[in-house]
Amino acid sequence: MKAINGKQIASDIVDELTAKTASIQGPKPCIAFIRVGEDPASVSYVRGKNRTAEKIGITPLLFAFEDSISQETLDAKIDELNADASVNGILIQSPLPSHLDEQSAFNRIDPNKDVDGFHVINAGRVVQEDSAGFVSCTPAGIIEICQREGISLEGKHVVVIGRSLIVGKTFALLAMQNGPQANATVTVCHSRTRNLKEITRQADVLVAAIGRPEMVTGDMIKDGAVVIDVGINRVEDASKKKGYKLVGDVNFAEAEPIASRITPVPGGVGPMTVAMLMKNTVKAYELQNS
Amino acid sequence: MKAINGKQIASDIVDELTAKTASIQGPKPCIAFIRVGEDPASVSYVRGKNRTAEKIGITPLLFAFEDSISQETLDAKIDELNADASVNGILIQSPLPSHLDEQSAFNRIDPNKDVDGFHVINAGRVVQEDSAGFVSCTPAGIIEICQREGISLEGKHVVVIGRSLIVGKTFALLAMQNGPQANATVTVCHSRTRNLKEITRQADVLVAAIGRPEMVTGDMIKDGAVVIDVGINRVEDASKKKGYKLVGDVNFAEAEPIASRITPVPGGVGPMTVAMLMKNTVKAYELQNS
Repeated sequence: MKAINGKQIASDIVDELTAKTASIQGPKPCIAFIRVGEDPASVSYVRGKNRTAEKIGITPLLFAFEDSISQETLDAKIDELNADASVNGILIQSPLPSHLDEQSAFNRIDPNKDVDGFHVINAGRVVQEDSAGFVSCTPAGIIEICQREGISLEGKHVVVIGRSLIVGKTFALLAMQNGPQANATVTVCHSRTRNLKEITRQADVLVAAIGRPEMVTGDMIKDGAVVIDVGINRVEDASKKKGYKLVGDVNFAEAEPIASRITPVPGGVGPMTVAMLMKNTVKAYELQNS
Repeated sequence: MKAINGKQIASDIVDELTAKTASIQGPKPCIAFIRVGEDPASVSYVRGKNRTAEKIGITPLLFAFEDSISQETLDAKIDELNADASVNGILIQSPLPSHLDEQSAFNRIDPNKDVDGFHVINAGRVVQEDSAGFVSCTPAGIIEICQREGISLEGKHVVVIGRSLIVGKTFALLAMQNGPQANATVTVCHSRTRNLKEITRQADVLVAAIGRPEMVTGDMIKDGAVVIDVGINRVEDASKKKGYKLVGDVNFAEAEPIASRITPVPGGVGPMTVAMLMKNTVKAYELQNS
């Protein structure tokens, strides 16, 4: 099948982690979620992660704070969870209210419990190709998709649109590593790129992670390319009950006939993010108990 | 002039740092060098750095150890220098003997004294675009050359040949940052890249950092490109007293007529490395005394 079923791959990973967790004697892996405020998207994301953790047999802990909490209170909670040996992973749901320093909070997490991979040390470990680190979940999920779908990056020209820390830049670093799931020639494009189409048309693997609805059109894609769509954009749609529909950064209808493989939105990269978070949590548990 | 005089730029930086250091009241900035063994290249590099430090008015300290020292002895010295407030920068001359863990030694240095930029935290800061960090000296030197020679990277296609941590990968990360000396579209090529020539011919700025003598030939370069040659390779030359000559990764004779600007070897990027080390040392001093 041309469309890559990310939902199925994520479900396979959840099953594998469930089996692994079931075989653990004694206390199970544990992830602590810190959520600040009641932003509906954040509430919904944390709820989804919590549910998946429970399904796998990972113990979830939720610490919800009011919007007005101080950095000191947040820091104290992080310190407490760092010191608690029964907690293997810590996730601070982003975004935090603007009066809080988000990167400072990420960097306060014990890097060995940083299952979201946002700590500066884990960013550095990706650069240094140190596999003991935690890779942020969306780029790790794209690598996992490629691996499980038999899409080799070796010697391929990977073009990434978007240079965000949490997706584009980190995926580029992973794809250019010296290793079996990597060894790609990598180009990073972004809003300042001239002749974007000229570059994307060279891609054997095109990763769109720029957050602009359907900006990648058919004429930007090489015949037979693998297209990975990381975008999740809401666009108005009066025909839907919610008044909107979700579309990716790729015009799927145009891209699908040209691509050899393509991830749809929803159901492509999206479901992989939570699955990789759980995989990181089990890895953290194993590292802390080995 | 077409050839970029890196020696002159480095000398200008040394002059600026000398003036800055002269204006400092009280103890001057201080850099500690740790050298293990008597490898002639390492001895010569450290001697050169020591001399430049002295010239600027930076106090150099040299700690030379025998080849056989233990990791514990090395670690103890690093800890001592970390704790010594009069030491602003610490450099461990690479390579260390193979019984020592080099990255572990780099990571033991206080990241705020890591003027070589090899600590995992400083690698992470480059990814996160946190300018409080220290950038390793050769890639920082290339950015400095571009800045001082009026070579804008904005919207340009920068192609880097080589994905080493200390040059290629770090320079790619700098060039793709969101900022005035950056904003380039960046491609990273390496030994596994197919159709290398097809890609390098697209480069507005071509950076060769792969360590293969004169491998970049004229036909790989676009008319009017800026060519930055990071390679320093010894090739046999019976006509020289030493029996060898230094050449870059670029065939200069072929590239020079095609390029709009080009760094020669020697005298191009090479001299910038020590200058940027000194700049990092003065930055460390300022951060520690602000």
